Formats: sequence, C-alpha cells, structure tokens
Amino acid sequence: MANFKMVVAYDGTRYNGWQKQGNTGNTIQEKLETILSKLTDAPVAVIGSGRTDAGAHAKGQTANFHLEGQWKAEDLLAHLNRYLPRDIGVISLCPVEERFHARHHAKRKVYCYRCRISPIPNVFERNYYFPFDKPLSLEKMREGASLLVGQHDFRAFCSNKRYKKSTVRTLYSIDIVEQYGEIRFYFCGNGFLYNMVRILVGTLLEVGEGKIDSQRLLAILHSKNREEAGITVPACGLMLMDVHYDEQIPLS
Amino acid sequence: MANFKMVVAYDGTRYNGWQKQGNTGNTIQEKLETILSKLTDAPVAVIGSGRTDAGAHAKGQTANFHLEGQWKAEDLLAHLNRYLPRDIGVISLCPVEERFHARHHAKRKVYCYRCRISPIPNVFERNYYFPFDKPLSLEKMREGASLLVGQHDFRAFCSNKRYKKSTVRTLYSIDIVEQYGEIRFYFCGNGFLYNMVRILVGTLLEVGEGKIDSQRLLAILHSKNREEAGITVPACGLMLMDVHYDEQIPLS
Repeated sequence: MANFKMVVAYDGTRYNGWQKQGNTGNTIQEKLETILSKLTDAPVAVIGSGRTDAGAHAKGQTANFHLEGQWKAEDLLAHLNRYLPRDIGVISLCPVEERFHARHHAKRKVYCYRCRISPIPNVFERNYYFPFDKPLSLEKMREGASLLVGQHDFRAFCSNKRYKKSTVRTLYSIDIVEQYGEIRFYFCGNGFLYNMVRILVGTLLEVGEGKIDSQRLLAILHSKNREEAGITVPACGLMLMDVHYDEQIPLS
Repeated sequence: MANFKMVVAYDGTRYNGWQKQGNTGNTIQEKLETILSKLTDAPVAVIGSGRTDAGAHAKGQTANFHLEGQWKAEDLLAHLNRYLPRDIGVISLCPVEERFHARHHAKRKVYCYRCRISPIPNVFERNYYFPFDKPLSLEKMREGASLLVGQHDFRAFCSNKRYKKSTVRTLYSIDIVEQYGEIRFYFCGNGFLYNMVRILVGTLLEVGEGKIDSQRLLAILHSKNREEAGITVPACGLMLMDVHYDEQIPLS
C-alpha cells in the first residue's frame, strides 16, 4: 500500500466542516474520498490532521490516504484538482512512509482568527472574517493571551461538555496583530479542543472590550467551566493555517 | 444640491454589471440608487465613471450623486455599508463641487486582469481570476503590449460593432507582471471601449502562446476589425482598480 500526504485548502463557507458525519456528503473529507474512490475503484479513507468546524476554512489542512497499486503523486494531484469543487484545492501531494498518520503525527497546528474592526467592509474577503465594531484594547488582549500560553487544562474553552479524554493542551504562542483594518489572532499549539480557538477569541475580545479583566483568565482556566468563558465567535473568521510534523517524512 | 463622490468596491460575480439596463434590479448602480432613494425619499441618480461588464469586479469604481438637503458624508457612508449586500462596499465618500461628474471628469482608469497559470488553484480568490494552463512567453506579450501603448483607434478591440462615437483611446501603459502563480495585466488609459481590456488580454495571450506574432498587433489595430483580434477572455478575471481625476475636487 502506498501512503500519500496532501495539503488541502478550502473555503469552508458551504460545508459542514472537514469530517464526515453520517452520509451528508457535504464535508471536505467526503469530497476527497469520493474522487479517490472513483479513481481507484475501491473505498479510500482520507485521514485529516483533525476536524475543522462547519463554515471554517483552511489554507493548510493536512491529510493522508493509502492506495493499492502504482500511482504517481503528480497525477493524483492533478486528478483531484480537476474534479474537486472550486472551493476546495489540493496544494501539494507527495508519497510518505507507510506509517505516517496525519492526525497521530501532527505536532503543532497554527490557526488564524480574523476580526474586521474597520467599518469599511472588504468585499472580496467577506466570508473570511468576523466584523467587530466595538473598541478594543490590544494591550489588554495581549496581557490576557500571555496568561493562556503554556500547558493548561482548557476544559473551560471547549464546547463539548461530555468530552472524556484529557483536555490538557499546550499553547506555544498567541500573537495578536492589527493589520489591514483587522485584528488577527494567531494560535500555535499542540492540539485544539472542539471550538477552542473560537471560545478563546470570544473571551479575548471581552477582555479587549474591558468586560473581563485580563487577570480573570486564570480563574476561568481553573474553573474548567465553559460558562465562565466568553462567547464562541462565528466560524467564518477561522482559518487552519498550517499543520507541522516533526520531520519531513520521506518515501518508505 | 450637495454633490458627493464615492469609491465603491464590488465582487461582480452575481451582478449584471455596474449599469442599470431596463429594471433588472441586478446591477451595482441600482443597489446604490435604491438605498439612497429610500433614505432621502426622492429619486437619486448615481453616476459611475463608466460601466463594468457583467461578472467583472471593482476595487475602485468611482461615482457621484446629488442630494437635496443636509447630509453628512460619514452618515451616508455608514448607511450605505449597512444596507448594501455584502459583496458591495463603499470605501470612501466625500462632498465635492457641484459640477463634479464621475464620468466626464475621469482622466485615467486602471484595470487589472488576472490569469492563473499555476495548476494549483487559489480557492479563496477563485472568482477573481481566469485559469489559463498553456505555456506563455512573457517576453513576447510585453513586446506586443509595447505596440499597443499610445493613442490608437481601438475599434478592433471593441465588441460593439455599431459604436458610433470615436473609438480612439490612449493607453498610457500596459504592465505584465508574474506573481503568486498568476500573470497580471495592468492597463492604464484615458478610457476603454466595451470589452476592450478583455479582448486586449485575449489577444496578448495568443501572442504569448505563439499563435499571433507580436508584430501583427499593429496590423490588427489598423484593420479596425474585431475579427482580426483574439478572444474575449471571461469577465471574472477583470478588476477596475482605480479611477483618477485631475485634482482632488474640494467642497464647493
């Protein structure tokens, strides 16, 4: 069995997220699996680095899949881009060691969340940001963000209350940048819980507005209670930028 | 009567172009006029710098309109952006001299046409470029473009055969840039005929492919015959970037 790794970009606006749920057909994973299964005349499982929410986007989602037989990476890339809808694209595709697993081997992920603070819309990017019109203190948000960096139990920042596995994650960095009429939040971590980035941003915005004191973020973390944290901001502003693996995994 | 100048951006994908034709309701001009007429309870005429084609986009379309009564530019800007669909936005709006006319006083326009030559799609910009997968010689296209710069009768590059006014226009520059997996054609001129940019690009692409010798462009110009020129490339790749006026026209 040959194993292939690919980087996938998508405008998630009209999808129910990355991962298939039942048989809606309306997920990125299913679009990829359907094309690969038809091509090879056998069921193909596409393994993503993780889920992305309905309506969220990706520039660098990473996935792998196994195929029987001889396939050239360049032909698979061209075939996928030919048959995928125009809002999904494969950026790169290469053969990897058979043991490579896009989820298990992911070491770090980078997400970006875009809030547009300018009252002037950017019509060409309208589906990729969340408009936010209240005054924000960058300084307070950066103060708050610095308290969230590190290894913590992020249960308070997870929408799934019945999540049974560990909710401990490590955030390596949170960068908050103001540019082009937007505030962009960059999160780099070893993994993210369900809705975690969107709740972190919602909470940091409340810190920026002065509704929550930045020092209270530690108490929110320690509470492990979702209701202590801020709102879940809309998925449209969320973009999975990059998934990092420890080494470039060569062809086996 | 107060006169206002505004700069308008739009994703033209779902519109029949800038200018109203009958009463389709589906043009940018009508969207703006409807909101301003409702606000002021009187018919308002919005005068654009010129038409743009169905499906073509603008970052810097410029228009003016007259209103009775006292209106603040900032309130008009906010009101328009509040009620416009998300694919149309007003970038700026200011009071100008009563005599200012967005079409008559336009001195130069800049258009950009984007051809994506990379086989990898850019899913986020998919509605703003034309995918083109044949090899192109930038050198030949630049050679050809240099022959088109200047004052010429561009009748061969106009789709409207029954156009009765002068078809003489001046192209100040054509810049052809390769970046981000695309070839971008920038045209600066004192005015453009119907479909002129799209036919110029279609013809330059044939020059780039080696189908038309660059030196033949002069013969095509002189023929004044649309059939001698190349194809009309799709509107989706076309963007009106900027409209220049001689001076900043101050409040009268």
